[in-house]
Amino acid sequence: MARRGRNVVKGSGKLAQSPWGQPINRFGPITFAAAEEIEALHDASMELLENTGLYVLSEKALRLYEAAGAKVDYSNNRVRLGRDMVKACLASAPSQFTLHARNPDRNLEIGGKNLTFLTAATPPYCSDIDRGRRTGNFQDMSDLLRLCQSLNTVHAMTGYPVEPQDLPVPTRHLDCYAAFIELTDKVWRPYGTTPDAVKDGLEMICIARGISREQLKNEPSLLINVNINSPLTFDDTMSDSLIEMSEMGQAVIVSPFTLAGATSPVTMEGALAQQNAEVLSGIVLTQIVRPGAPVVYGAFSSNVDMKTGSPAFGTPEYNKCAIISGQLARRYGLPYRSSNINSSNVVDAQATYESQMSIWGAFLGGVNVFFHGHGWLESGLTTSFEKLVIDSEMLQMMTAAMKPLSFSAENLAVEVVDEVGPGGHFFGTAHTLARYRNAFHAPMVSDWNNFENWNESGGLDATQRANAVWKQLLQEYTPPPLEEDRREAIHAYVAKRKAEIETMKAA
Amino acid sequence: MARRGRNVVKGSGKLAQSPWGQPINRFGPITFAAAEEIEALHDASMELLENTGLYVLSEKALRLYEAAGAKVDYSNNRVRLGRDMVKACLASAPSQFTLHARNPDRNLEIGGKNLTFLTAATPPYCSDIDRGRRTGNFQDMSDLLRLCQSLNTVHAMTGYPVEPQDLPVPTRHLDCYAAFIELTDKVWRPYGTTPDAVKDGLEMICIARGISREQLKNEPSLLINVNINSPLTFDDTMSDSLIEMSEMGQAVIVSPFTLAGATSPVTMEGALAQQNAEVLSGIVLTQIVRPGAPVVYGAFSSNVDMKTGSPAFGTPEYNKCAIISGQLARRYGLPYRSSNINSSNVVDAQATYESQMSIWGAFLGGVNVFFHGHGWLESGLTTSFEKLVIDSEMLQMMTAAMKPLSFSAENLAVEVVDEVGPGGHFFGTAHTLARYRNAFHAPMVSDWNNFENWNESGGLDATQRANAVWKQLLQEYTPPPLEEDRREAIHAYVAKRKAEIETMKAA
Repeated sequence: MARRGRNVVKGSGKLAQSPWGQPINRFGPITFAAAEEIEALHDASMELLENTGLYVLSEKALRLYEAAGAKVDYSNNRVRLGRDMVKACLASAPSQFTLHARNPDRNLEIGGKNLTFLTAATPPYCSDIDRGRRTGNFQDMSDLLRLCQSLNTVHAMTGYPVEPQDLPVPTRHLDCYAAFIELTDKVWRPYGTTPDAVKDGLEMICIARGISREQLKNEPSLLINVNINSPLTFDDTMSDSLIEMSEMGQAVIVSPFTLAGATSPVTMEGALAQQNAEVLSGIVLTQIVRPGAPVVYGAFSSNVDMKTGSPAFGTPEYNKCAIISGQLARRYGLPYRSSNINSSNVVDAQATYESQMSIWGAFLGGVNVFFHGHGWLESGLTTSFEKLVIDSEMLQMMTAAMKPLSFSAENLAVEVVDEVGPGGHFFGTAHTLARYRNAFHAPMVSDWNNFENWNESGGLDATQRANAVWKQLLQEYTPPPLEEDRREAIHAYVAKRKAEIETMKAA
Repeated sequence: MARRGRNVVKGSGKLAQSPWGQPINRFGPITFAAAEEIEALHDASMELLENTGLYVLSEKALRLYEAAGAKVDYSNNRVRLGRDMVKACLASAPSQFTLHARNPDRNLEIGGKNLTFLTAATPPYCSDIDRGRRTGNFQDMSDLLRLCQSLNTVHAMTGYPVEPQDLPVPTRHLDCYAAFIELTDKVWRPYGTTPDAVKDGLEMICIARGISREQLKNEPSLLINVNINSPLTFDDTMSDSLIEMSEMGQAVIVSPFTLAGATSPVTMEGALAQQNAEVLSGIVLTQIVRPGAPVVYGAFSSNVDMKTGSPAFGTPEYNKCAIISGQLARRYGLPYRSSNINSSNVVDAQATYESQMSIWGAFLGGVNVFFHGHGWLESGLTTSFEKLVIDSEMLQMMTAAMKPLSFSAENLAVEVVDEVGPGGHFFGTAHTLARYRNAFHAPMVSDWNNFENWNESGGLDATQRANAVWKQLLQEYTPPPLEEDRREAIHAYVAKRKAEIETMKAA
């Protein structure tokens, strides 16, 4: 009954999706700010980097900045970057690079007009409409990873789909990385947020891909997100994880959380200027560490709800900043990260229209790396199983909408119209019959039955139908192939590291 | 409790909305089809008009086409239009015009980058989450008109917000037009769909505006939508209503319903070529009747659900056609109509994401006249009270997103960031305090409370909150002022015409 609306592969009963692949963005980029306004933003952020400077906690980072020509005041950890130095560092950052998955069919092209859709990054909670909202655990994380593997719109994982809080913190990342490797064959992120956790990620991806550390250096396989702590604070775990990744030639996304009215000025112009200064300070560090290291311009400027002071996402201001941030990324020739976010507490119209504002802002901004693409709810505190499916549906629709047309005589079909003639219909023509099976995008969740049929088959809304979709996907899930020796080596690495960490704790 | 999430004017408790006004489209137009592809579409449609031709039922229309140079075959009502004739007629169509409301503050500028948001046109049913789905009646229509008057995003009415099926058909339009005039002061559409009903509309708008028929000719005040019956059939009620309106200098939108795979070829390219031929055939007639008569290029190409043959709206194919149709309208220098539509049976995520696909397709297509902008549900069979509010919310958000920024030193706020410094926050700065009250768009429906607060205040989803919004709007509604003599004249006209129609029926 609930299956009625769903799109299944004929005969198999299996859920049919759009095929795997990275879409080409045909909607963006557009310009929202004029060229001289982008320069005004650039100048304001250069002023911030030159005069106000950055508070950098890590000794290692301070020395790297200094060696590259920054003014460093060790008495107060302040780093000031001249605009010539910033410009010189930006020159070596690549505009496009490849991320290598353990399954080469899952490799990703980052930059240009290529789109990469990711997952919600590590919310503390998860929810579905049967079991409600709950603290993240390893079982739920594993199920969400199975869904990430199954859904073709998920190109890579941005973090843990939910934080598995039932696992001990010091070794949690090891179990999660092993789950990434065993349950999926897609690109993932070493989310540990400490340099040591990043190191474990680098070791484990080498095992999973069966490559040396030298090869890894030339084949970026992992991405991390580095969050400048706005305003203008570069925490040591962040800078040192960045250093670890860039040394190894892995991808770093730098994304400050510039929340207008809280962590940045209340004006969106001010939030964008500060965002730009903060992003560039991180990108400069990647290029100091290793010129040519892959890096992404990350934007996350939004506004607070002035009634409560809490952040709001998918707002009109957020949409605008997503477009302008893309203009900034292109000014520096960098790939661009944006996010699919909303502030709703339930998978409803608000969750959807705020997400859509985020999606269109990103696409029109020329996004390359679309963070939080699947499942984000409650301003990022929850991954929703149903939202994950609905986000996949929306991204499938965006992908289908961008498919080019072909204005051949056959498709323009003048003769077909002539043959049918005024007052006829096209259901039975040879032209229709030859094409109708694949003529149009087929949805996973949308129900196009008329009211009566829809009502008779249970009157389910989209969220309830999405519930049936993820259950079917979990049932149909099969783990991607993994060479047995690599699996064993992964397990052995995890066991060894757990023992080391236990010993260190005991010591 | 339910009021928590809502945006009220401080002290008054009244619902706060974005102000009345037509937004300027800053997102579109974009191009999806290349210039030579647009020419291929144009050529294909010219071929259809020249060779296949149109089936025109009205004798009056046949004679008008013939007098203007078309090849007319009276034996089979076939009209063939040469491309030179089409070109000559298009030359006199204005690219922009003003629609005059009975309240001049509600006048609308149609064309250019100006956006006009309308309502769902005359569904047979209406629904809300308390009373469910029901056959349209005059009470519900009147309540919906009150909401149309109250919501600032509603610029004009596209028809009856719901068909009042409890009123007798022959005189229904008279009561509805009187309701338009008394309950609102905005532009409306004489929906009668017969030339006589259009005539009544023309008389009644003259009374409502207190102007002569001569003045009306120079001040377009009404709009109608003329539907070419695809494929290539021009029904007599449609052509003759068009003639009536264009003679009087009133606005005509020509919109065929080209449904790929049913009323047009299964390829979207073919649907667009046929759409273009059909739109132009109607536009040509307006200019034959009165060169310079205001007219709008209407597009309504979508695809069927190939499983059921029923129409699907807000699909990826629809989105693409909305963008390309805008390119076609601009090729001819005409204002462009698109629609806010979806195929959901309930106000859920599907209703919203399909609407958003329609909204963005229209905006990126450079829409001027946004039909069905508020309330459309169930592929147009129902106006939903809650969807009407949620559509208003989404259009408010679009409007806010398009507001330009100003990159002044004050807004770039470099000094403010410097003053706060690394690690500080911006809540208490003078810069924030001076601006926070109006810094950001404030929603009507969205709830940005955290999960706990949201849950405690009832855990309402967006549809439930929209329900509270329309109830509050109805409570706060006050009818717009109307001169007593005009009101009496309207009533007298309605009474006179009802008597005439009764007499005619009896005869």
